[in-house]
Amino acid sequence: MAKLLVIYASDYGNTKKAAEVVAGGAKSVPGTEVVLLQAEKVKAEDALAADAIIVGSPVHMGSMDWRIKTFIDRVCGGLWMKDAMIGKVGAVFATGSGYGDTGGGAELTMLSMLNNFAELGMIIVPLPKNTPGYPKGGLQWGAYARSAGENLEQTGVSEDSLAAAKNHGANVARLAAALKGAKVFGG
Amino acid sequence: MAKLLVIYASDYGNTKKAAEVVAGGAKSVPGTEVVLLQAEKVKAEDALAADAIIVGSPVHMGSMDWRIKTFIDRVCGGLWMKDAMIGKVGAVFATGSGYGDTGGGAELTMLSMLNNFAELGMIIVPLPKNTPGYPKGGLQWGAYARSAGENLEQTGVSEDSLAAAKNHGANVARLAAALKGAKVFGG
Amino acid sequence: MAKLLVIYASDYGNTKKAAEVVAGGAKSVPGTEVVLLQAEKVKAEDALAADAIIVGSPVHMGSMDWRIKTFIDRVCGGLWMKDAMIGKVGAVFATGSGYGDTGGGAELTMLSMLNNFAELGMIIVPLPKNTPGYPKGGLQWGAYARSAGENLEQTGVSEDSLAAAKNHGANVARLAAALKGAKVFGG
Amino acid sequence: MAKLLVIYASDYGNTKKAAEVVAGGAKSVPGTEVVLLQAEKVKAEDALAADAIIVGSPVHMGSMDWRIKTFIDRVCGGLWMKDAMIGKVGAVFATGSGYGDTGGGAELTMLSMLNNFAELGMIIVPLPKNTPGYPKGGLQWGAYARSAGENLEQTGVSEDSLAAAKNHGANVARLAAALKGAKVFGG
Repeated sequence: MAKLLVIYASDYGNTKKAAEVVAGGAKSVPGTEVVLLQAEKVKAEDALAADAIIVGSPVHMGSMDWRIKTFIDRVCGGLWMKDAMIGKVGAVFATGSGYGDTGGGAELTMLSMLNNFAELGMIIVPLPKNTPGYPKGGLQWGAYARSAGENLEQTGVSEDSLAAAKNHGANVARLAAALKGAKVFGG
Repeated sequence: MAKLLVIYASDYGNTKKAAEVVAGGAKSVPGTEVVLLQAEKVKAEDALAADAIIVGSPVHMGSMDWRIKTFIDRVCGGLWMKDAMIGKVGAVFATGSGYGDTGGGAELTMLSMLNNFAELGMIIVPLPKNTPGYPKGGLQWGAYARSAGENLEQTGVSEDSLAAAKNHGANVARLAAALKGAKVFGG
Repeated sequence: MAKLLVIYASDYGNTKKAAEVVAGGAKSVPGTEVVLLQAEKVKAEDALAADAIIVGSPVHMGSMDWRIKTFIDRVCGGLWMKDAMIGKVGAVFATGSGYGDTGGGAELTMLSMLNNFAELGMIIVPLPKNTPGYPKGGLQWGAYARSAGENLEQTGVSEDSLAAAKNHGANVARLAAALKGAKVFGG
Repeated sequence: MAKLLVIYASDYGNTKKAAEVVAGGAKSVPGTEVVLLQAEKVKAEDALAADAIIVGSPVHMGSMDWRIKTFIDRVCGGLWMKDAMIGKVGAVFATGSGYGDTGGGAELTMLSMLNNFAELGMIIVPLPKNTPGYPKGGLQWGAYARSAGENLEQTGVSEDSLAAAKNHGANVARLAAALKGAKVFGG
């Protein structure tokens, strides 16, 4: 049985909704146990107990929300010192505004979160292009959902984005299960 | 008078069109001289003669076209060794497909091109959010134009994207003119 | 007269020291006024009053310190909405540990901070390779100083790194002065 | 039995040497079959036959060698269209000069190669901090070997870097074996 930890920060509820859908996708894989936590509430033992971690953030000025960054500095730095997360599985998702045709900052936001996983020695799960919802709600680094339109008006997140998010959660659950007990790193 | 060099690679003519519009925007600034070249044809002396360089590429698998990369390795590496480009102005633009809601790979493509300018010690011009065309055709790192739809069908580039591209060219021309003769770097 | 704002977060005093040296380099350019502030204390009016901003952060898990990120979310997001920073000058520096031969995470940390400047429409200043101190204390995106050795023991920052930092500050001051009154962006 | 494909481009033989050591590390895992190819010689069927791909490049101006980029555009683009690589394993390594304290461009070079794997839907293997050789020859995104000193003089790659490279190859082989037959992505 694989244990997943889904972590998020949310301003208007959009990233929270995406997080719930990611968690639901993970739970749809039989034998998966999922814990869903706001970034402020995550403790080191939550991360240690998980086989996989999925982190989601709003895009703020092209990088992750400060609460996600605070979680990383506060919790992940110490786990890095102890080599405590090596070989676990990591993935990300994000929400952002509709300004700019390209979800400005979405890629670099995801990347800055994935970099934390790379530092921790965690195996990274991208979002394949054939994932349901991807054409309108995906990005190579993870699920992405716009929550505002071109004039920055709130729109909520689309069904396509949520479909991608759900599948992303399930993919991570399956990888965590497949790697349960495997010894990948080190001699 | 500022001299601009616009460099591009193009598969279906979309990036070429964007390059022509960038060049046109630059020319619209009085006293600007613009040279437009395919990446394969650029020589070191073309770069040396320019006050500013704008490079545009299609997005291929999340990074720049191999012809742009070949130009960088073939021409820019040697200029880096000689510290020959320090203090000039650099900017980028890109075209990409419509797959994914976020122009997958657009940011990292632009960034990998900008990194070359950073290595060369060149001053980097972003695309401000209030640029005409930005809401549908801009990205913080430069002008971006989709040239295909969700099913990867060719669509051509939009007027919004071309408006952003034109303004981007003009911005670079104005910065190059403002810095003409300035001694920014070094003691 | 150009006004510079140097912003930093610091854990053990190394980034603070680098910030002071950056500020000193800026002040060495005649006619430059420099304000040095901890990230927590920066207000929107501080940013608005500056012609150039230089931000420095320790590298934490491959990205900026949470206090820098909090400043960006708290102060810069609102300035972005108002297009209030367009055309100002931005630059970054960082400190990091000695673990890994390559200053693991230094590039992506600097980049995540520069991305904020790009979103704000600010002109970006890299660190040229011929800068004094660069061979041992530079990086293309800005000045970088190691503050710990291979075993993560505190070492303080080197003279080379501080030389690069000082020159970086002076470069930014000169660019801000050269652009004073220039109208680069928009029609 | 897992099949690995190690791909490289090399100017002075340093990346070739690192590639051979990566391949040797992979072979040290019982039941692993390894093919080692120069980037120019890789065909689509080579990639299709592999369970995992490891790509290594010299750092050129902060991004991958043009021959690696040509391989990506020429071979990987078509495989992306066909969703043919989803669920395979990917990893990277790089060599670079000694200029700058931080292996300038190493991170962004590795990242631009990893982005190709993300686009292809491949599972990404980082280099954990406790890997032998990491303190002097590692980076979170993969093994990194300096091949030149501060004055850009050729030095060859260090034993530390080669130790990291060897372990990186073995890690990838073990992950590919652990995932053999697993169905991670999609419904």
